[in-house]
Amino acid sequence: MGGGAPVSVQSMTNTDTRDHAATLAQIDRFTAAGCEIVRVAIPHADALDGFERVCQGSPLPVIADIHFDHRLAIEAARRGAAKLRINPGNIGATQRVDAVIEAAGEAGIPIRIGVNAGSLAEEFHDRDWPLAQKLAASAEAFCTHFESRGFKDIVVSAKASSVNATIDAYRMLAGTLPYALHIGVTEAGTTFAGTIKSAVGLGVLLADGIGDTLRVSLTADPVEEVRVGWEILAALDIRRRGPELVSCPTCGRCQVDLVPIAEEVERRLRSIDTPVKVAVMGCIVNGPGEARDADIGVAAGKGVGLIFRRGEPVKKVPEGDIVSALMDEIASLDVE
Amino acid sequence: MGGGAPVSVQSMTNTDTRDHAATLAQIDRFTAAGCEIVRVAIPHADALDGFERVCQGSPLPVIADIHFDHRLAIEAARRGAAKLRINPGNIGATQRVDAVIEAAGEAGIPIRIGVNAGSLAEEFHDRDWPLAQKLAASAEAFCTHFESRGFKDIVVSAKASSVNATIDAYRMLAGTLPYALHIGVTEAGTTFAGTIKSAVGLGVLLADGIGDTLRVSLTADPVEEVRVGWEILAALDIRRRGPELVSCPTCGRCQVDLVPIAEEVERRLRSIDTPVKVAVMGCIVNGPGEARDADIGVAAGKGVGLIFRRGEPVKKVPEGDIVSALMDEIASLDVE
Repeated sequence: MGGGAPVSVQSMTNTDTRDHAATLAQIDRFTAAGCEIVRVAIPHADALDGFERVCQGSPLPVIADIHFDHRLAIEAARRGAAKLRINPGNIGATQRVDAVIEAAGEAGIPIRIGVNAGSLAEEFHDRDWPLAQKLAASAEAFCTHFESRGFKDIVVSAKASSVNATIDAYRMLAGTLPYALHIGVTEAGTTFAGTIKSAVGLGVLLADGIGDTLRVSLTADPVEEVRVGWEILAALDIRRRGPELVSCPTCGRCQVDLVPIAEEVERRLRSIDTPVKVAVMGCIVNGPGEARDADIGVAAGKGVGLIFRRGEPVKKVPEGDIVSALMDEIASLDVE
Repeated sequence: MGGGAPVSVQSMTNTDTRDHAATLAQIDRFTAAGCEIVRVAIPHADALDGFERVCQGSPLPVIADIHFDHRLAIEAARRGAAKLRINPGNIGATQRVDAVIEAAGEAGIPIRIGVNAGSLAEEFHDRDWPLAQKLAASAEAFCTHFESRGFKDIVVSAKASSVNATIDAYRMLAGTLPYALHIGVTEAGTTFAGTIKSAVGLGVLLADGIGDTLRVSLTADPVEEVRVGWEILAALDIRRRGPELVSCPTCGRCQVDLVPIAEEVERRLRSIDTPVKVAVMGCIVNGPGEARDADIGVAAGKGVGLIFRRGEPVKKVPEGDIVSALMDEIASLDVE
């Protein structure tokens, strides 16, 4: 992570960690969706056995997420965590934080210093600073302390549910810290609002070159977080998993029922790994232009679709055959 | 538009413009969702009568969207268009463009010069430039021509389906043109991918202070475009319509079934106009902090929710009563 490595996509299980089978099953779903790192909460000592078995069975590196009780972090480091995530501000006395640092050092694993607007250290509560400055100052102070203990295997996050505060905090940290940054907008909300807040916040940061790993937070099935994370990276051409679909918004010019066609093509493309570019266009204004620019495309006319392949029109098919004609052309690309 | 006016949200009808009743019904749905400007396609002369009746009946300013045939633009200006949108590159000979400019001048309405990667003027097809530069240069050349005809009531757009090309093109235009910019990522795709591409692209531009009006393009019900547009503006605290919902992603610490609670609260908040901030939080790590920061909030424990009002805990309710308790508190805020 960091140092020019690709921006990785992570998520967090929401199963009961004591139920290692359910947790591993969820991690398998994460993995299939493209998740590369998984975080698992250890809310209490009861969860440690489950956590250990999850670490043993997971195809992905497992990060232990711990709040309040430093002993859980120490134990997680001993039981196979690939990384610890703590918010030092809620761990308590300095010697407890230091004990966690020591345990991570012995295990040879990094620590993410995860500062969060909802659990900012007490000392910042009453300062008359913008939230972003509080978040950045808190994270920087923890880094300084970790360095004073000779520990530099650090990843830093500083999340707020405010997109602007999140952007400002990470811009500050990118300017002052040499460490990898885990970016995310916290408590972003439901699938609809949370997807948009995350895409705006992470999009602005990634477009600035900020961020080494990302987590989208949604109040939803966490598999959705992985899909949204990848789509944000794809939007900026940073990384892409599988095909790209370009499709038009339809307007009074469109003479086929385009929305179900585009939705069905998107659904079928999910099972294809090749990075093919597909254009589904409803009319002749931008249709042929976009379709030509794609590997495979269709520009619709009245009840028909003109199929393009690598810029060349190949055939005209009735509306009902557009999806299958596109998929046939895509399959034939694979064979080449 | 422009000159410090708030960034406006627009969309485009996808009904048959000849059917003025269906088009006006769709505009009513746009209006209810917060749309502020509506664009209507005039694909052929048959649509002019319907367009005229739409202009007469619409509660929103109506922009005529015209390609290829300059006579349709001239006629639309005479029949009540609040603005013309053309891509001068596909209107043909200069004297045809000039006739449109003259008609807009006589009607006292602006023209949007809408350059689009899918319908770029022929002269740019073979240049070895990045797409963004082609888009910006094409838009700038049209502006120069319009100015040479004494016409400066211009809005400019330069859209690509590539988010990066769109961002780069608008950054160039923001540096060179004095005109209002209509921003959007074109042919962004289905609801899922298109929402994310639009949020990333428009988010980056808006965070830079670029953009006077926006249109989200989705292959979906265009009402969804309006909702996404508002959510992008809200994400950056630029403008907000109604309430804000903060909710957590849930994790192994969450002891209530939070996703349906948050979804239900989001659904009920849609009918509320007051800009109340509501937090739905699943545990005690960040829950009380976020809930305190909201007007109304809940931090869930095991099968219960602690309701907060303006930072103060007010009562503990069983899981099944969380939604109604939150809505009761929100309603009582309105009464104050």
